[in-house]
Amino acid sequence: MRFLDQVRAAVRKNNSLVCVGLDPLPEKFPAHIQELNQSIFEFNKYIIDATHDLVCAYKPQVAHYHARGAEDQLQMTIEYIKDNYPDIPVILDSKRGDIGSTADQYATEAFERYGADAVTINPYMGIDTVEPFTRYEEKGTILLCRTSNPGAGAIQNLKVGDQFLYEVIAETAMKDWNHHNNIMLVVGATNPDELKRIRAITGDMTFLVPGLGAQGGDVEATVKSGLNSQGEGIIVNSSRGIIYAGNDENFAEAARAAAIELRDQVNQYR
Amino acid sequence: MRFLDQVRAAVRKNNSLVCVGLDPLPEKFPAHIQELNQSIFEFNKYIIDATHDLVCAYKPQVAHYHARGAEDQLQMTIEYIKDNYPDIPVILDSKRGDIGSTADQYATEAFERYGADAVTINPYMGIDTVEPFTRYEEKGTILLCRTSNPGAGAIQNLKVGDQFLYEVIAETAMKDWNHHNNIMLVVGATNPDELKRIRAITGDMTFLVPGLGAQGGDVEATVKSGLNSQGEGIIVNSSRGIIYAGNDENFAEAARAAAIELRDQVNQYR
Repeated sequence: MRFLDQVRAAVRKNNSLVCVGLDPLPEKFPAHIQELNQSIFEFNKYIIDATHDLVCAYKPQVAHYHARGAEDQLQMTIEYIKDNYPDIPVILDSKRGDIGSTADQYATEAFERYGADAVTINPYMGIDTVEPFTRYEEKGTILLCRTSNPGAGAIQNLKVGDQFLYEVIAETAMKDWNHHNNIMLVVGATNPDELKRIRAITGDMTFLVPGLGAQGGDVEATVKSGLNSQGEGIIVNSSRGIIYAGNDENFAEAARAAAIELRDQVNQYR
Repeated sequence: MRFLDQVRAAVRKNNSLVCVGLDPLPEKFPAHIQELNQSIFEFNKYIIDATHDLVCAYKPQVAHYHARGAEDQLQMTIEYIKDNYPDIPVILDSKRGDIGSTADQYATEAFERYGADAVTINPYMGIDTVEPFTRYEEKGTILLCRTSNPGAGAIQNLKVGDQFLYEVIAETAMKDWNHHNNIMLVVGATNPDELKRIRAITGDMTFLVPGLGAQGGDVEATVKSGLNSQGEGIIVNSSRGIIYAGNDENFAEAARAAAIELRDQVNQYR
């Protein structure tokens, strides 16, 4: 099934636009998890079991695994989702971007080694660095457009003629790069006005929206600015706000409660 | 020693501005190497032994290791260089870029897990995504500016006022981001005029220059446009043109010959 269809089915099945980011930081794990072998995988398993009926996607962020030589636990985590909750697609958040022959290698990593359903990509190097991913037609390619971090504007809000650079990226992705109809955009929740401008450029394109929760975005404004004409089209990611909601024996229940709260807050404005 | 001092010392010791890119593709290895356990590490070892006195740096490109689950062989390769040729710095070519807390994880990967001396970074997300790397003052942070791939211009040559986007990146990196004096730029060899414009903006800043060899840049024009006022300031990378110069039992000698040829071509115009 194509990634966008997987997402749509999961959104409807779980009545949720929430994606949980699996960004493991072992020092933040509850003590009884820290002690385990393969504590990253064990932690993720608890979070996944506690949230699988509340989400439309999972999004492991690769740096958290690379920093610790835990690529095996990343692979086990994705396999665990595929084996137990095959309806929930997995976005590999790696923000890759390199010349074509190297992008081929990254696509192999994401889609063949890990079996991810979608991947995040940096658009700065142009279409030949994006196409090795979009060529996997069933998979999703999610391009950085307007990110949620404090320093993003210094580059992404540069004026190119009468547009902002992020608008040019959105328009280029939509008009020139989306040959396989599987491109999406990363649009942060930290500025609803920008979300609205990008929505106006891209029709019903789906956005991955980080920045609610730990990064402080406003739920109502984000949802109202981001939804497409079908009342969908946003995948609202929260990582730290959900997975570190608790840090004792009840951390999984705390994560579940945080996921329910975010799901309901988002649904309230749909 | 600071990365730039390491490079300068290696340039002078080996009289070379050449960097060899370690981009292993096992299907391109000679048959007798393909058969070995840990063939990637074995291949790299031959290349390194055959070229260590001809180069100023090595640059492993991470996707080639990630695609095959060969992070251990990447680590062994870097350790092999450090143990045997400690004068030659290692650039981890990973083009990372992510929000600050994630960038911290990537910096841990590059500098602590792998012990690299420098890393390539994508600037699209802004200073807070760059600073977790530059904060390691001894290490080098090499930002993408104008890349050598065919599609780069669609984004990097957008006009921002009367400048190209890549010029704005160069100027921002130089004036606003270089607090620790350890930022460098990736500037492709495919357009010497652009190299000249970036040199004019950045004084004596060091550039990593890919695109000679397999990607087809012109050596004379590249060197003359890229050198700084000290007749240095460019690290000329070749990957495929050197490491796959031969593919039989004599592949290491072929790589050595190709490295000598590039070193001499570059030196001819210094």
